[in-house]
Amino acid sequence: MDPKQILEQVRDGAMSVDEAEQYFRRAPFEELGYAKLDTHRRLRSGFGEVVFCSGKADEYLVSIFERLAADEGEALGTRATPHQFELVQKACPQVTYDPIARLLKLENSDKPHIGNIAVCTAGTADIAVAEEAAQTAEFFGSKVTRIYDVGVSGLHRLLANLEPIQAANCVIAVAGMEGALASVIGGLVQNPVIAVPTSVGYGASFGGVSALLTMINSCANGIATVNIDNGYGAGYLATQINRLACGKENQK
Amino acid sequence: MDPKQILEQVRDGAMSVDEAEQYFRRAPFEELGYAKLDTHRRLRSGFGEVVFCSGKADEYLVSIFERLAADEGEALGTRATPHQFELVQKACPQVTYDPIARLLKLENSDKPHIGNIAVCTAGTADIAVAEEAAQTAEFFGSKVTRIYDVGVSGLHRLLANLEPIQAANCVIAVAGMEGALASVIGGLVQNPVIAVPTSVGYGASFGGVSALLTMINSCANGIATVNIDNGYGAGYLATQINRLACGKENQK
Amino acid sequence: MDPKQILEQVRDGAMSVDEAEQYFRRAPFEELGYAKLDTHRRLRSGFGEVVFCSGKADEYLVSIFERLAADEGEALGTRATPHQFELVQKACPQVTYDPIARLLKLENSDKPHIGNIAVCTAGTADIAVAEEAAQTAEFFGSKVTRIYDVGVSGLHRLLANLEPIQAANCVIAVAGMEGALASVIGGLVQNPVIAVPTSVGYGASFGGVSALLTMINSCANGIATVNIDNGYGAGYLATQINRLACGKENQK
Amino acid sequence: MDPKQILEQVRDGAMSVDEAEQYFRRAPFEELGYAKLDTHRRLRSGFGEVVFCSGKADEYLVSIFERLAADEGEALGTRATPHQFELVQKACPQVTYDPIARLLKLENSDKPHIGNIAVCTAGTADIAVAEEAAQTAEFFGSKVTRIYDVGVSGLHRLLANLEPIQAANCVIAVAGMEGALASVIGGLVQNPVIAVPTSVGYGASFGGVSALLTMINSCANGIATVNIDNGYGAGYLATQINRLACGKENQK
Amino acid sequence: MDPKQILEQVRDGAMSVDEAEQYFRRAPFEELGYAKLDTHRRLRSGFGEVVFCSGKADEYLVSIFERLAADEGEALGTRATPHQFELVQKACPQVTYDPIARLLKLENSDKPHIGNIAVCTAGTADIAVAEEAAQTAEFFGSKVTRIYDVGVSGLHRLLANLEPIQAANCVIAVAGMEGALASVIGGLVQNPVIAVPTSVGYGASFGGVSALLTMINSCANGIATVNIDNGYGAGYLATQINRLACGKENQK
Amino acid sequence: MDPKQILEQVRDGAMSVDEAEQYFRRAPFEELGYAKLDTHRRLRSGFGEVVFCSGKADEYLVSIFERLAADEGEALGTRATPHQFELVQKACPQVTYDPIARLLKLENSDKPHIGNIAVCTAGTADIAVAEEAAQTAEFFGSKVTRIYDVGVSGLHRLLANLEPIQAANCVIAVAGMEGALASVIGGLVQNPVIAVPTSVGYGASFGGVSALLTMINSCANGIATVNIDNGYGAGYLATQINRLACGKENQK
Amino acid sequence: MDPKQILEQVRDGAMSVDEAEQYFRRAPFEELGYAKLDTHRRLRSGFGEVVFCSGKADEYLVSIFERLAADEGEALGTRATPHQFELVQKACPQVTYDPIARLLKLENSDKPHIGNIAVCTAGTADIAVAEEAAQTAEFFGSKVTRIYDVGVSGLHRLLANLEPIQAANCVIAVAGMEGALASVIGGLVQNPVIAVPTSVGYGASFGGVSALLTMINSCANGIATVNIDNGYGAGYLATQINRLACGKENQK
Amino acid sequence: MDPKQILEQVRDGAMSVDEAEQYFRRAPFEELGYAKLDTHRRLRSGFGEVVFCSGKADEYLVSIFERLAADEGEALGTRATPHQFELVQKACPQVTYDPIARLLKLENSDKPHIGNIAVCTAGTADIAVAEEAAQTAEFFGSKVTRIYDVGVSGLHRLLANLEPIQAANCVIAVAGMEGALASVIGGLVQNPVIAVPTSVGYGASFGGVSALLTMINSCANGIATVNIDNGYGAGYLATQINRLACGKENQK
Repeated sequence: MDPKQILEQVRDGAMSVDEAEQYFRRAPFEELGYAKLDTHRRLRSGFGEVVFCSGKADEYLVSIFERLAADEGEALGTRATPHQFELVQKACPQVTYDPIARLLKLENSDKPHIGNIAVCTAGTADIAVAEEAAQTAEFFGSKVTRIYDVGVSGLHRLLANLEPIQAANCVIAVAGMEGALASVIGGLVQNPVIAVPTSVGYGASFGGVSALLTMINSCANGIATVNIDNGYGAGYLATQINRLACGKENQK
Repeated sequence: MDPKQILEQVRDGAMSVDEAEQYFRRAPFEELGYAKLDTHRRLRSGFGEVVFCSGKADEYLVSIFERLAADEGEALGTRATPHQFELVQKACPQVTYDPIARLLKLENSDKPHIGNIAVCTAGTADIAVAEEAAQTAEFFGSKVTRIYDVGVSGLHRLLANLEPIQAANCVIAVAGMEGALASVIGGLVQNPVIAVPTSVGYGASFGGVSALLTMINSCANGIATVNIDNGYGAGYLATQINRLACGKENQK
Repeated sequence: MDPKQILEQVRDGAMSVDEAEQYFRRAPFEELGYAKLDTHRRLRSGFGEVVFCSGKADEYLVSIFERLAADEGEALGTRATPHQFELVQKACPQVTYDPIARLLKLENSDKPHIGNIAVCTAGTADIAVAEEAAQTAEFFGSKVTRIYDVGVSGLHRLLANLEPIQAANCVIAVAGMEGALASVIGGLVQNPVIAVPTSVGYGASFGGVSALLTMINSCANGIATVNIDNGYGAGYLATQINRLACGKENQK
Repeated sequence: MDPKQILEQVRDGAMSVDEAEQYFRRAPFEELGYAKLDTHRRLRSGFGEVVFCSGKADEYLVSIFERLAADEGEALGTRATPHQFELVQKACPQVTYDPIARLLKLENSDKPHIGNIAVCTAGTADIAVAEEAAQTAEFFGSKVTRIYDVGVSGLHRLLANLEPIQAANCVIAVAGMEGALASVIGGLVQNPVIAVPTSVGYGASFGGVSALLTMINSCANGIATVNIDNGYGAGYLATQINRLACGKENQK
Repeated sequence: MDPKQILEQVRDGAMSVDEAEQYFRRAPFEELGYAKLDTHRRLRSGFGEVVFCSGKADEYLVSIFERLAADEGEALGTRATPHQFELVQKACPQVTYDPIARLLKLENSDKPHIGNIAVCTAGTADIAVAEEAAQTAEFFGSKVTRIYDVGVSGLHRLLANLEPIQAANCVIAVAGMEGALASVIGGLVQNPVIAVPTSVGYGASFGGVSALLTMINSCANGIATVNIDNGYGAGYLATQINRLACGKENQK
Repeated sequence: MDPKQILEQVRDGAMSVDEAEQYFRRAPFEELGYAKLDTHRRLRSGFGEVVFCSGKADEYLVSIFERLAADEGEALGTRATPHQFELVQKACPQVTYDPIARLLKLENSDKPHIGNIAVCTAGTADIAVAEEAAQTAEFFGSKVTRIYDVGVSGLHRLLANLEPIQAANCVIAVAGMEGALASVIGGLVQNPVIAVPTSVGYGASFGGVSALLTMINSCANGIATVNIDNGYGAGYLATQINRLACGKENQK
Repeated sequence: MDPKQILEQVRDGAMSVDEAEQYFRRAPFEELGYAKLDTHRRLRSGFGEVVFCSGKADEYLVSIFERLAADEGEALGTRATPHQFELVQKACPQVTYDPIARLLKLENSDKPHIGNIAVCTAGTADIAVAEEAAQTAEFFGSKVTRIYDVGVSGLHRLLANLEPIQAANCVIAVAGMEGALASVIGGLVQNPVIAVPTSVGYGASFGGVSALLTMINSCANGIATVNIDNGYGAGYLATQINRLACGKENQK
Repeated sequence: MDPKQILEQVRDGAMSVDEAEQYFRRAPFEELGYAKLDTHRRLRSGFGEVVFCSGKADEYLVSIFERLAADEGEALGTRATPHQFELVQKACPQVTYDPIARLLKLENSDKPHIGNIAVCTAGTADIAVAEEAAQTAEFFGSKVTRIYDVGVSGLHRLLANLEPIQAANCVIAVAGMEGALASVIGGLVQNPVIAVPTSVGYGASFGGVSALLTMINSCANGIATVNIDNGYGAGYLATQINRLACGKENQK
C-alpha cells in the first residue's frame, strides 16, 4: 500500500490514525524491499555459504550441511573438530576434512583457480592459520602459493623467496610472537598485504595481541590487518582482491 | 669475489682464515645485490614519495619537498600543520594545503583518475580522517566517491546511499565511537572494505581503541583494518586494490 | 531507647560516658529500623528469590531450594550445571532445568505473562545467553518474543523482523564478536534497548570485552549495557521496564 | 508539526491528502552535504534531533541549529562550549546555555513534565554529568528530582534520602572513583537504575574506567550502565522508561 | 566541641539534657544544597572533615572552609592550588598552605603528636606525595619521621637508615617507577607497611600503574597498597594504626 | 625457642653465653640448596615461617615442613592441595588441613588469642579467601569475628551487623564482582580496613581486577588493598595491626 | 664441522677447495617443505640451531633433530615435553632431557666452559625458568653459578651471596610476582643484568606482566629485560656477553 | 659490639633483655658494614654520577652539578630542558647541552673512546632517543657508530649498512611504531642487541607500548629491551658490554 492510499483511507475513516502512524514509523525501511536482498547478495558476491562450526550444535551443523549440499553442491565449514567431521560425513559422504586447517569442505573437484595469492608464515607454528587462509582462498577459486617459515629473524630465507611473493596479486602474511613479517613484506611488494596475527607465542604475546599491535602500527604502506588467527577472513579478502585483479570476466 | 677465489686465496695463504670467515658471514645477503632494490621498488610501486610531516624538523621538511619537487614534480605530505605549509610554500610556491585533511600537496593538475573508491563516514567528526584517505587516493590517481554521515544509528541514511557504495572497487569505512559502520557495510557489498577507526568519541572509546576492536572483530566478511586515524594508509591500500581492479594497463 | 533517655541516664550517672558514646556512634543507622527493610523489599519488588548456582556448595544449594520451595513455591537458579539439577531434583522433584540457558526453575505453571519484551541475538552462538535473559523475564511474568540470528552483517534478516522489535516495551540485544547489533537496533526503535555483550568470538574479542566496549560506546540513543554474558541481569531489568509500561495495576 | 497531528488533520479534513503526502514523502533525512539531518527521528523515536556540539565546525553548528529551530521549534545541543553558545545565540537569540551541564537549549517554556526520575551523585564533582542527565530528561518532558552528594562512604546521607529515590520510576546513579553508588542504590529500589560512571578521580581511576567496571560488575539487580560521563545518554534512556511508566496516553 | 566532652558535661551537670539533645539531634550531616557536610564523621571515626579541593568551585570551597573553621576549629584541604589558598585565606586568615604537599591547613598549633610513623621515599621526585602523607598524619596527631631518597637501586642508603624505620609503628613507602621499595622494607620491619605508588616515571610506568602492580604483588608480608599518589589516604590509615599502637587513652 | 626466651634464660643464668651465641650465630637462613629457610624471620618480624605450597615439589614441601616442625614446632602452609596434605601428614602426623581455606597447619592447640579482627565477605563465594585470612590471623594469635554474606546489594544485612564490625581493631573486607563492600564499611568504622578483592565473578570482573580497582579507588578513608585472593596477606597485616592495638606486652 | 675449521683445513691443505666450496655453496638454509633449517646460523652468529619444541608436530620434531644430529652433532630443544623426549630419543639415543628446564640436549660431553654467568632467582618457583637459562648458557659453553631463592623480601639471603654475583660477567635475575630482584641486583653489580620475569604469582601478577613492568621500569642502571619465562633468551644473551668478556680467542 | 659481648652483658645484667633483642633484630644487616658499600660501588663501576634532570628543583640541580664538577670534574644530566641548561651554565660555565638528546654534559674533552657500539634507528623521529643513547655511551668512553633511518619497511637501507652493524660489540636498535627493527637486526648479528622502543607513532602505538611488546616478543635471539624512550639506559648497558668486550685492561 502506498502512502497516498493510506492517507486517503485515513481521510475516509477506513484506517485509524494509530494504524496509519504505525505504517509511517517503519516506512523508510520497508520501501527498500529487503526480501530481495538475500538472493541479490548471493548472486552478486560469488561466495558460497560458509559455516563457522565452532560451538555449533551437532544437529544444526549436519542439517545446514545437508541443505547446502542439496542447494549449492558446495560448502565450507571453518574451525571444525574431527568429531564434527565424522558427524557431517555420515550425512554428506563426499565431505572432506583437513585437520591442520580445521576445514570441512564439500567442493567441486574441477573448479578453476585464477590469479595468484601468496601465503607466507613467519614460523612453522603459524601454518595452521596459514592453511585456513590458503584453502579458503582455493575454495573460492584462487590460485595460492605457499611460502612458509620465512620469519624476519633469518632474513635470507625471506629474501630467497621474494620472487613469488612479489608476483602475487595479494600477499597474506601470517605471524605470531612479534609479528614483524608483515612490515618487512610490505616494504618489498607492490600489491596489498593482508596481515594475520596468530596466537603463537608465550609470555607478553598475549594470545596474539602483540602481533596484532605490530601489524596495526606497521610503518610500511599497503597493509591491513584481520583478527588474530582469522585465516578464513584473510583468505576471503584476498580472494576479493584477486578477483578484482583478474578482471570481472574471470569472476565466478 | 666469488667463494672459490676466496678459498683459493686461503689455500694459497693470500687471505687469512679470519678475513675469509668475515666474507662468508655476510654472504647470504650480499649476493642478492641490494643496491638495485631501491630503484626497482619505485619503478614497480607507482607510488611517489610521501612525507609524514608530524614532528619533522623545519629545515628537513623544506629540503625534502624541494628535492621531491625537483626530482618527481609531485609530493604528498601527511599530518602537516599550517605552520609547515607556510614554510614549504616559501620554497615550493605551487604546493597546496588542506587544513581538514592536514595534507600538503604538490600535484600535477591534469592527472587522470581511474576506477572507483567509496569513502564513507559514520559521523561528521570522522570527516578529517576520511578526507586524508580520499585525497590520498586521489593523489595516487583513484576516483573517489564521498558518502559522509551514514552511521548505523540512523540506518536509512546508509541504505539510501547503497548504490554508490556497492559500485565501488573498494570501500573505506571511517568511524569512531563504536565503529559499527564497517560491519554493516561489509554485509552489503561485494568488494573489500578497509576499516579505519577514528579517535572520535569519549569515555570508554579510549582514543579509538574501541572502534579498532569492533572492526577487528567484525563478523562480516571482506574487512581489514588499519591503524586509528590512519586515513593515509587506507587511501594507499584502496588505491592498490583499485589499480588491480582497473587492470594493469591502466596503472601508473 | 531514645537519645533523651540516654542523656538523662548519663546526667543521672546511670550510664557511663563511654556507653553513651557508643550509642551515638551508631545512631544514624539504627534509627532507620533496618530489620524491616528485608520484608519491605520483597513485598515491594515483586521479584522472587534468585540463586546464582555457579560454585555453590551442594548442600547449600539444595537447602536453599528446599526453603524457597517451602516458603515461596517458586525459585530461579542461574548458571546451574546438570549435576546441580540432579541434586536439587532429588529434594524438589518438580524443579525443571534448561541445559541451554543453564536455568533451574521451580515455577507456577499458570503464571500470567504481561507486556512484551523482544530478545534479539546477532548469531546462533549467542542463544544461550539470550535464553537466560528470555526465560528470566518469563519467570518474572513478562511476555517474550525471540528474534534470533539477526546480526548486522546480513542486515536484511534484521530489517525483515523490525515489526516485533519495534512493538516491544523493551529490547534485549545479545551479541558477541563486534557487538554492533545494539547500535543498529537502537537507531530503529522507540523504547529502551538493553545490550548484552557475550563472550562469543575469538582473537581480539577478549572474552566479550570488545563487544562490551562497542555497546558502551554506542552512538545510538536509548542503550544501556550489562555485564558480559549477563542474560539474567538483562531479563530482570527488562522486566522492571516492562512492568512499568504495563502500569502498576498489572504488576505482581 | 507532529505526525499524529498531521494524520488527525487528514482524518478531520483539515489537511488535504496531497499536503500530507508532501510531509511524509520528504526524505527521511535532509542532506546538508557535510551532514544528514535525521528528520524522521521524532517520528521513529518520539525524540527530536540532538546535536553533539563537541568539535563541530562553527558554520555547521549554527546552520544545524537554525534548521532545527525552523523545523521543530526545539533543539538540544550537548557538550557545547561558551564560544559555541555565543555563535548559536547570534542566529537563534532564544537559545539558552548551562555552563555546568554544557547544554545548549532551544526549548518551549510551557512544556509539561511527567513522571519522576531521580538523579543521584556520589560527590559534588559528579554534578556536571548529573546535570547533563537531569536537564536532558527535563528537555524531553520528564520530571526530575536531584539528590546530590550521597556517596557510599557516608552512608547515612544516602539512607536519609531514600524516600524520593525509591519513589522514582527510574534512578540515575552518577559516580566516579570507585563508583559503588549504583550497587547500593540497586539494592534499595524497585525500579531500574541507570549507572553513569564519571571521569572523576585520579591514579587508578583511569578516567572513569574503574567506575565503569564497578557498575558493569554490580551484584545488585536492575542496573545497566552507559558510557563514562554520558549524562545525556542516561537522561534519554531514563525518559524512555519514565514515558513507559506514565502510560502511552501521556507520551509526547 | 567533641561528643565525649558534651557527654562529660551532661554527666557533670555543666550542660542540660536539652542542650545536649540539640547537638545529637542535629542531622548527621548539614545540607548545603550542593554538598552534605559530614558533621558526625569525627564522632564515628575520630577524624575531622577533610576537603578534596581539586576541582571544587571557588565559592563552595570557601564556604566549606568557613563552616569547618566555625564548627571544628580545624580543617584540612588536599590537592589545593595556590589560587585556592589565596581564596580561602581571605575568608580564614589563619589558614596555611604547603605548595609541595598541596595541603591547606587550619590547625591548632599546640596539638600533641603521639607514636611514630616512618615515611620513606625511593627518590626525590616522590617527596610531594610523601609530604602529603606525612603532613596528613601530623595533622591527625601522629609523630612522623621522614626518610627520603632510599630507593633500592642504592641499597646502602636504605640499610643505613634501618633503625628509625624498624622503630616505627607503621611505615609508609612511597615510590614510583618500579616501586620495589615497599617489598624490600616489608622484609625488614615488624610493623605494617603502607605502599603508595606514585605517578613518577615515564614510558611503561603508565602513570604509576607499574608501581601499583609491583606493590600489590609484593612477596613480602605485611604490605597493603593505596591509590596512586594517594599520600592523604596513606597518612590517614597510618594514623589509625599509630593510634591503635599508642593505646586508646592517647587517642583524640 | 624464641629469642626473648633465650635472652631471659641468659639473664637468669639458665643458659650459658656460649649456648646462646650458637643460637644467634646460626646463619640467618638455612641453606637447603633449592631454598633458603628464613630462620631469623620470627626474630625480625615476630611471625614464624610460612610456606606458599602452590607448585612446590613434593620432596621440597615435605622436608621444609619437617624442618619447621623440628625447629619451631609450628608451621603454616598456604594454597595447599589435598594431595600435599596427605604427603606432609605422613611426615608430620599432627598437621591439619582445611580444604576451604586450603591451609596446612601445625599449630599449638593452647595458643592464646588476643584482640579482635572482623572478617567480612560480600557473598558466600568469597568465604574461601575470607577463611584463609581468618585462619591465618588465628594462627598468628588473633581473635577473629566472622561476618559473612553482607554485600552492599542488600544493605540491611550489613547494617544489622555493624556492632561487631565497629568493635574490631581491624576489619578485613573480602569481595569479588564490583567489590563495593570495602568502601561502605570504610565509611562506617573507626579502625583500618584491609580490602581483599577476590576472583569471584564473570565477564568484566577480569578475575578480580575490577574489584581490585574499586578498592584502590575507594573514596572512603582508612582502606588499603592487598592482592586478589590474598587472604593470607590480609590476615598477616591485620594481625600486625591487632598486635599493635593490644599493646606490646601482649605480643607474641 | 665449523666454518673456521674448514677454512683452516683449506689453508693447511687438509681439505680441497672444491670440497670446501661444496660446504659454503650449500644454501644458507635447507628446505624441508614445512620448515627452513637455518644452516648458516652458526656461521653468522656462532650459535648452533635451536628448536622451539612446543607445539611442533611429532614427525617434524624428530626429523629436525635427526638432521641437526647429522649436520652439527649438537642440538638444543626448548620447551620440550616428556613425550617429545621419548620420540626424539628413539631416533637419537644419545639425546638427554631435563624435566625441570624442559630442555632436550644433544651435547658434546667434553665441551669447555668459559667465563662466568650468575643465575639468581627470587623464589624456588622461579627455578624452572632459571634452569632453562643456566643450561642454555652451559650448552653454549658458558660457566654458570646458580644462586637461588634470594628474593628481596628476605634481603639478608641476597646480601650473603653478593660475592659470586658481583664476580660474574653477566647476571641473570629471574623473578615473578613483583619482580623487584633485578632492581636490587642492578644496584649492587658492575656488569650487565638480564631480567627475566616469570609467570609465577597469582591475582594481579597477570601471568608475569607485573614482573615484566617492574623490570622494564627499573630505576637501576644496566638492566635489560627479556620476555616472560624466556629463560632460553636470557641464557643466549648472557652467553653473547660472556663470550665478549672472555675475548675472541676463547670463543667457539 | 659483638654478639658475645652483648650476651655477656645480658648475663651480667648490664644490658636489658629488650635492648639485646633490638640488637639481634637488626644484626644480619649491620654486620655487613654497609657504610663502605658506597665508595666500593663507585670505584668498581667506573661510571660517573648521572642526574635525571626532569622535574628536579632548580636549586637542587645546580648544587648537584656544582658538587659533581668539584668532586669528579665530569657529570651527565639526562632529560634536561633548555631552561635547566641556562641555570646550570651560570654555575658551571663549561657545561654543554644537546637540545636533541636533552643531555647536559660536563666532560673531559680528551677522554679516550674504546670498542664499538652501533646505534641504529628505524626512522628520523627516533633520533632524539638514539642520540641520548649514543652520547651516553660516548660520555662513558665508548666509540659509537650511528646508522639512522634504516627501518624495515625499506629493507635495502638496512642491508646496505650491515657491515658496521655486524662489526659492533653491541647494537642499540631504536624504533617506535611497530618496532620491528630489533628483530631483523637480531637475526643478522653475532653480538647482543639492546632494543629501545620509542613513543613515536600514533593510534594504537600507545605511546611506545606496541613497540615495546614487539621487542619483548622478538623471535630473534640475543635481544633484550629497556624502557620506552630510555636511550640513557641503553647507552649505559651497551657501555658495560663494550667494556667487557674490550677487556679489563681497557676499562676505566
